[in-house]
Amino acid sequence: MSITITDLIARDIRFPTSRTLDGSDATHPDPDYSAAYVTLKTDCSLEGDGLTFTIGRGNDLCMNAIESLRHFVIGRTLDSITDDFGLWWSSVVNDSQLRWLGPEKGIIHLATGALANAVWDLYAKSKKKPLWLLLAEMTPEEWVRAIDFRYITDALTKEEALDMLQALEPSRQNRIKTLRESGYPVYTTSAGWLGYTDEKVQRLCHEAIDEGYTHIKMKVGSDLNDDCHRASLIRDIIGYDRTLMMDANQKWDVNEAIEWMDLLSEFKPLWIEEPTSPDDVLGHAAIAKAVYPIKVATGEHCCNRVIFKQLLQADAIGFCQIDACRLAGVNEVMAVLLLAAKFNIPVCPHAGGVGLCEYVQHLSMADYICVSGTMEGRVMEYVDHLHEHFETPITIKNARCLVPEAPGYSITMKEDSLKEFEFPTGAAWKD
Amino acid sequence: MSITITDLIARDIRFPTSRTLDGSDATHPDPDYSAAYVTLKTDCSLEGDGLTFTIGRGNDLCMNAIESLRHFVIGRTLDSITDDFGLWWSSVVNDSQLRWLGPEKGIIHLATGALANAVWDLYAKSKKKPLWLLLAEMTPEEWVRAIDFRYITDALTKEEALDMLQALEPSRQNRIKTLRESGYPVYTTSAGWLGYTDEKVQRLCHEAIDEGYTHIKMKVGSDLNDDCHRASLIRDIIGYDRTLMMDANQKWDVNEAIEWMDLLSEFKPLWIEEPTSPDDVLGHAAIAKAVYPIKVATGEHCCNRVIFKQLLQADAIGFCQIDACRLAGVNEVMAVLLLAAKFNIPVCPHAGGVGLCEYVQHLSMADYICVSGTMEGRVMEYVDHLHEHFETPITIKNARCLVPEAPGYSITMKEDSLKEFEFPTGAAWKD
Repeated sequence: MSITITDLIARDIRFPTSRTLDGSDATHPDPDYSAAYVTLKTDCSLEGDGLTFTIGRGNDLCMNAIESLRHFVIGRTLDSITDDFGLWWSSVVNDSQLRWLGPEKGIIHLATGALANAVWDLYAKSKKKPLWLLLAEMTPEEWVRAIDFRYITDALTKEEALDMLQALEPSRQNRIKTLRESGYPVYTTSAGWLGYTDEKVQRLCHEAIDEGYTHIKMKVGSDLNDDCHRASLIRDIIGYDRTLMMDANQKWDVNEAIEWMDLLSEFKPLWIEEPTSPDDVLGHAAIAKAVYPIKVATGEHCCNRVIFKQLLQADAIGFCQIDACRLAGVNEVMAVLLLAAKFNIPVCPHAGGVGLCEYVQHLSMADYICVSGTMEGRVMEYVDHLHEHFETPITIKNARCLVPEAPGYSITMKEDSLKEFEFPTGAAWKD
Repeated sequence: MSITITDLIARDIRFPTSRTLDGSDATHPDPDYSAAYVTLKTDCSLEGDGLTFTIGRGNDLCMNAIESLRHFVIGRTLDSITDDFGLWWSSVVNDSQLRWLGPEKGIIHLATGALANAVWDLYAKSKKKPLWLLLAEMTPEEWVRAIDFRYITDALTKEEALDMLQALEPSRQNRIKTLRESGYPVYTTSAGWLGYTDEKVQRLCHEAIDEGYTHIKMKVGSDLNDDCHRASLIRDIIGYDRTLMMDANQKWDVNEAIEWMDLLSEFKPLWIEEPTSPDDVLGHAAIAKAVYPIKVATGEHCCNRVIFKQLLQADAIGFCQIDACRLAGVNEVMAVLLLAAKFNIPVCPHAGGVGLCEYVQHLSMADYICVSGTMEGRVMEYVDHLHEHFETPITIKNARCLVPEAPGYSITMKEDSLKEFEFPTGAAWKD
């Protein structure tokens, strides 16, 4: 049965999170976690939902950018998009006029991410499957047809990607079984935000241990003494059998990063995340070389597959942190999963924010089933925040993410939440 | 006398250039040259104008993004911005919430370019000087105070920049004199667009020679046979004493670029421009190595100083093509001029579009006077198109740009043109 997309509705949804210190880091002291939220209406009862995440001001610009992409979906059948999905995706990012606004970066790319994800949500719902299972049941040929290989063929050709996917295809069912039995490992950032009192850090570390976490991440980069103090507090509680990660949120220049990490290396972090500008491939490579054996992680602000390609080519990252909507949706994420596998670098998605955990659970699971074939050394970010606004929120048990079984991409928000937090008219913004 | 900025007006100005083939290239077949145009009103009779260039759809998104930056100028005195200009610029690109939309790339960065340029226009008008002269009379200390060195100190520190500027300061007056006598060399892209007939290409080449041009650029990348045919036509007319450049407008993957240039090398182009994705530093480096002695040029889509820094660090470019509003205004251009000089790479600005020639003449002249100290091997892009809409358009004589003497940044458009081409209400868009 053919489904036609008949309308696109974009909404500006914002949560006033800056009223607390949750989510504050060295670069973003006052985020209002927000979603430029898009719903695709169809000629049947199904809808496709997607969002791109921002931290407040400018969420309206993303919403308007989504509107500017209407012509790529309105009046189209779902099949006409998904049958040659990579070609459709390429037509969006190469719109002959809108392309100038990126290309493939910034607001227009964030908007493309929201739109592409809404199409994937609709696609999965139409097949009555959760997105990860839809991906797990797509053939290797369907996978590569969903990907635009433009600008990455010097690192990964379509043929190589096909070979990689085919090699793992026969054992997919085993991994689906494993996932359904034991879920996917997650780590927590809850204890590590800047601005918490010692008592709060200590309490949250104890709670994390009680909840089964083995990996805990802390923010660094605002004050070296404070970083050392909190790292020491955390290590005292979690010991050295558990893993500590550090996140600088782009605070440093290259040499500064190397100097600070020289001092913070005492606390033996697994990785230093976003040590500098997300655009600085060579800078990350220089830092990676200098801070070894600490690994460099980055990705949440890496704008497209071309940047990830280079980070991998330059040995600049030890962990690849895809973002579900900074990259332009599932199609581009698929390309980066394959690139990371080719270079043998584990993918540990960025999450938190609003909806990002809901999104990335599907991506990590599809990575495990179809691309990497292993959970070894992989761990997905988890922040226990704002999940109550989703129809089918992520479920964590003993520091593992349980397999979502509801059809779609888990990103549909409750209508009551959409109404309450719509900016600036919703009740949450009335005062 | 203190000047206070009291209002910001952003307008969506579009020219229906897609109705002809002027400006069509391998990646952008149907551009409507457009400007998100901003005027800063003050408490005196002076106004500051700026624009960012786009090619049609999405120009409204840039206009809205400019509006979202109002809070950085409204109610501020001009002095409070320009006295610590780099700090102000940094505060804009690091707005704690808007930053998420880039950072420092895409629509929000284009908008920052328009705004910063409007402030510079106002600043120059308030000093009753053309922008290039304002820059030429700023002390080395004032120069470095206008620049944000964040993320580039591994390649260029403030102290090094100061040394470079001080070394050339004593001879600035000689170069101002030379410029006023003989102008700055330009090249033409007029003969080289895709889709022209042989007769038109030949006629335009003859005209270019008659007008004194020694450097001519052609578009390539859509069809190899056609590229060879047109290159041959052009070389037959201009000979090998004059210089031919080629521009692929991001059409190729890395290996494809190397293969095509192997065949096009027969026509001995000086440079191949935008051979692949503007984000691909390592790709440009690989191409540069392979196509030597042809040089690689890029920049019009390079989103910020961090990308330029890496292109220079990686020996990826032989020519640095700054764009006056892809980079976030004069402040960021100043950083890139200094980076290019440090790595001994000539700056040959991107222009054309609408207003870009008016902008970049000031930048090339300031580069010559304050940073590079030479016009050797430098040439500025010039396209004879849409200049009639500006109050003080660029003046070309014998393939050289004459020094603009009117106060400001030459970017103020005629009110009649603004009215006629305002989208979608202007007369030009009524049909």
